[in-house]
Amino acid sequence: VIYAATSLDGYLAPPDGSVDWLEPFGDGPDLGIDAFLETVGSLVVGRTTFDQVRGFGDWPYGKRPTAVLTRRGGVDDVPLGVRADDGADLRGLVAALQEESGTGSTWLLGGGTVHRTFLAEGLVDEIWTHVMPLLLGDGIPMFPASYPATDLHLIESRTYTNGVVLLRYRVSSSVGHEDV
Amino acid sequence: VIYAATSLDGYLAPPDGSVDWLEPFGDGPDLGIDAFLETVGSLVVGRTTFDQVRGFGDWPYGKRPTAVLTRRGGVDDVPLGVRADDGADLRGLVAALQEESGTGSTWLLGGGTVHRTFLAEGLVDEIWTHVMPLLLGDGIPMFPASYPATDLHLIESRTYTNGVVLLRYRVSSSVGHEDV
Repeated sequence: VIYAATSLDGYLAPPDGSVDWLEPFGDGPDLGIDAFLETVGSLVVGRTTFDQVRGFGDWPYGKRPTAVLTRRGGVDDVPLGVRADDGADLRGLVAALQEESGTGSTWLLGGGTVHRTFLAEGLVDEIWTHVMPLLLGDGIPMFPASYPATDLHLIESRTYTNGVVLLRYRVSSSVGHEDV
Repeated sequence: VIYAATSLDGYLAPPDGSVDWLEPFGDGPDLGIDAFLETVGSLVVGRTTFDQVRGFGDWPYGKRPTAVLTRRGGVDDVPLGVRADDGADLRGLVAALQEESGTGSTWLLGGGTVHRTFLAEGLVDEIWTHVMPLLLGDGIPMFPASYPATDLHLIESRTYTNGVVLLRYRVSSSVGHEDV
């Protein structure tokens, strides 16, 4: 499952990767992030995202089995449940994480490169995005080009009082999808 | 006013600029495009978009005053109401179009470069987008980087039975906005 907040122009963050732009929405209505987290059994995280989240302090996603995709060698100071993975067999990786957790979905916690790779391999079942009411103008794209065209099915849309809109899609098909 | 259909990944069209990808939605519910057109008094169109729309046949936007932004010389075979403009004074251009039409908004009928230029000059009041339920994977971006970060205010969101979502925003502020 891809789940992320983006600007209307499709950025996960400004060019420096900072998350300050989301702060004004912290005092707003509950966007359901905790409810989403309760459905998550395991995580796949890009190395850049992982290092950034670690920079904020403790790893916030508990003991859920978590794979950090990295070609830059080992992950230092590893929190419980986290391991490095070279991304050579993503399908096998997801299967292993799901077996380990025994429950819940696998959250692809960015960044865009991880999204693209998983989309290209047909490994994404759902995309959830909170569209924040602003344009960042530049930054780290949620969906960096290029990957196969993919049909989506809207499962849910929700509009919050602060102008945030949740869009939730099931992935219907992908040119690059391999049947399993 | 910017008004366009985009894929969830923010493309106006695939890399070849074709509009075939929108065809499956032609038989769906009324997305309100005719109702929007009734609010439009004049248009600003990028040269590439203009040439493409002309390639489909007759110019479909009536006699509304229309400026085609181009640095490639004159526009051939000009429909009534259409003129070329070098884009040197966009604020003056919009004022002139609005005075000529006497009514309605000025539609920025793409492409992305026109959107960006007008956003950077603080000349966009509203952004309407129909988010189509698909990923194109690559193509012509609705908002090509880079332009100033811009706050938006959600005016309206509407979900259609075929999974299309209309998001309509008022532009609240822009770092690059010049007060008039």
